[in-house]
Amino acid sequence: MTGKEDFQARLTAVADATEAMLDKLLSASPLPGETFRPARFLAAMRYASLGGGKRLRPFLMVETARLFGIEGEGVLRAAAAVEMVHCYSLVHDDLPALDNDDLRRGRPTTHRAYDEATAILVGDGLLTYAFDVTADPASDSDPAIRAALVLALARAAGLGNMVGGQVLDLEAEAAAAPHTPEAVVMLQSMKTGALLRYAVEAGAILGRADAAAKAALSRYGQAIGAAFQVADDILDVEADEAALGKRAGKDADRNKATLVAALGLEAARARRDKLAEEAVAALAKFGETGAILREAARFAVARKN
Amino acid sequence: MTGKEDFQARLTAVADATEAMLDKLLSASPLPGETFRPARFLAAMRYASLGGGKRLRPFLMVETARLFGIEGEGVLRAAAAVEMVHCYSLVHDDLPALDNDDLRRGRPTTHRAYDEATAILVGDGLLTYAFDVTADPASDSDPAIRAALVLALARAAGLGNMVGGQVLDLEAEAAAAPHTPEAVVMLQSMKTGALLRYAVEAGAILGRADAAAKAALSRYGQAIGAAFQVADDILDVEADEAALGKRAGKDADRNKATLVAALGLEAARARRDKLAEEAVAALAKFGETGAILREAARFAVARKN
Repeated sequence: MTGKEDFQARLTAVADATEAMLDKLLSASPLPGETFRPARFLAAMRYASLGGGKRLRPFLMVETARLFGIEGEGVLRAAAAVEMVHCYSLVHDDLPALDNDDLRRGRPTTHRAYDEATAILVGDGLLTYAFDVTADPASDSDPAIRAALVLALARAAGLGNMVGGQVLDLEAEAAAAPHTPEAVVMLQSMKTGALLRYAVEAGAILGRADAAAKAALSRYGQAIGAAFQVADDILDVEADEAALGKRAGKDADRNKATLVAALGLEAARARRDKLAEEAVAALAKFGETGAILREAARFAVARKN
Repeated sequence: MTGKEDFQARLTAVADATEAMLDKLLSASPLPGETFRPARFLAAMRYASLGGGKRLRPFLMVETARLFGIEGEGVLRAAAAVEMVHCYSLVHDDLPALDNDDLRRGRPTTHRAYDEATAILVGDGLLTYAFDVTADPASDSDPAIRAALVLALARAAGLGNMVGGQVLDLEAEAAAAPHTPEAVVMLQSMKTGALLRYAVEAGAILGRADAAAKAALSRYGQAIGAAFQVADDILDVEADEAALGKRAGKDADRNKATLVAALGLEAARARRDKLAEEAVAALAKFGETGAILREAARFAVARKN
């Protein structure tokens, strides 16, 4: 197989394993200390998290941990947890008071399929459960590793990164003036970059990476996280509505802070390609074992959805 | 001083210390790994968490840890974190899609003072930050303690307890039939009891309590958590609107699941008093050092707001 085929096979394998782990974690049986899992609500949490997406964050975490020979149930639990945080953020971002989206991945959004109160609580439940799953001894036998994962996840998802980035995004949309490239880069680094960076960082934490490996992987995570977001901005302009499952071009309608709007399409493409090259370069020290993660960076550039 | 005066002094002291810790944690300076804390959003997070409430959960955590001679900055961080989770739950419960409340503690609710999108994200931000603060090494030098706190907090706040209890509460309100006492007890144990139990459990974890002490404190936490909720149900019926800062009697209007509705006022009072006695009895093994926590149980019965 070529590197590209390896990558696609691994992407599919990790997505399937993540799906299976989410399915298991969101079963009807209460855990010790839980009183009861309400059935309709559990179904809504499953609706919001199962059956969709590339599972990019789990992929980055699993493949980074694999660089250090770490794989299995524990890594998949931490990977399912970061996906829960991603899914919660989509459920809340889609709400009427925020982006007011009716469709997500071609299906009704959670507040459309259920109702608004349920969608708010589904997001709260997924976010909370992500920390439960990460802190549970089943994720890693070393409590220092679990505490480090929780801290890094909370900091990536919190007011100084993901949630704060969502706030800046809403403020940007309400603003009359166009957005500077610097403002868009910071916003995207917070809103989507931080959780992608966490996925790579968590793989390094689970892999007991040394300081030099952590530094290289931090550069990789920064570059690939930014590359994916620019690629999303470009796809939004290029793609037709059916392929994306949401109305294409709507970002431009709303004075959304995108790099295509701030830089123009050609400069955005150039930035995306440069970031992907930086991601590839950051992995030089890992040699052949880094091949899959290097392909992931090339995928960020070449993907069509 | 009498025990009652000691209790009131400690309640005030812990509330002041919690307020100071929340103020410090919600400062404008980003932590390592945070990109930026948006100013208006930070102000909204402060609005939702500063300046109000008895700080009952911090009080229970701090006083339980003090049974074992543990006090100071670390305990106050964990105490501020549980208060953040409590405040997030109030912000989301007050939203138009849920209870649609305009007032909370006599002030406009967060979505009234700011807007609905901000209130949703304020709740998300407070919940996420609670896990950051708890998992940070500043809360306890032992990562096993921090991981145990995170796990217990997430399990108390998640789909099998607090969030699930909120779901059951909404379902109960929509139901036509009156609610059985058993259903109300389970709902309240999930919605409000679990986080109060966590506060006591966290104090025991931070105090390195042995198994027998943990078991006694678990009985205490269960009883005082339930007693406080029954007392709230009774106060809602008794209190006038001005004293509570919300419209009194509205729970009955809505087919809310309360023990006053399910049992009648006199039986609810008897249950409250019996639970307070159970809480007091659970502390027998702690002798004089348990005096403040025993007074807390008596306060649950005697309080007027």
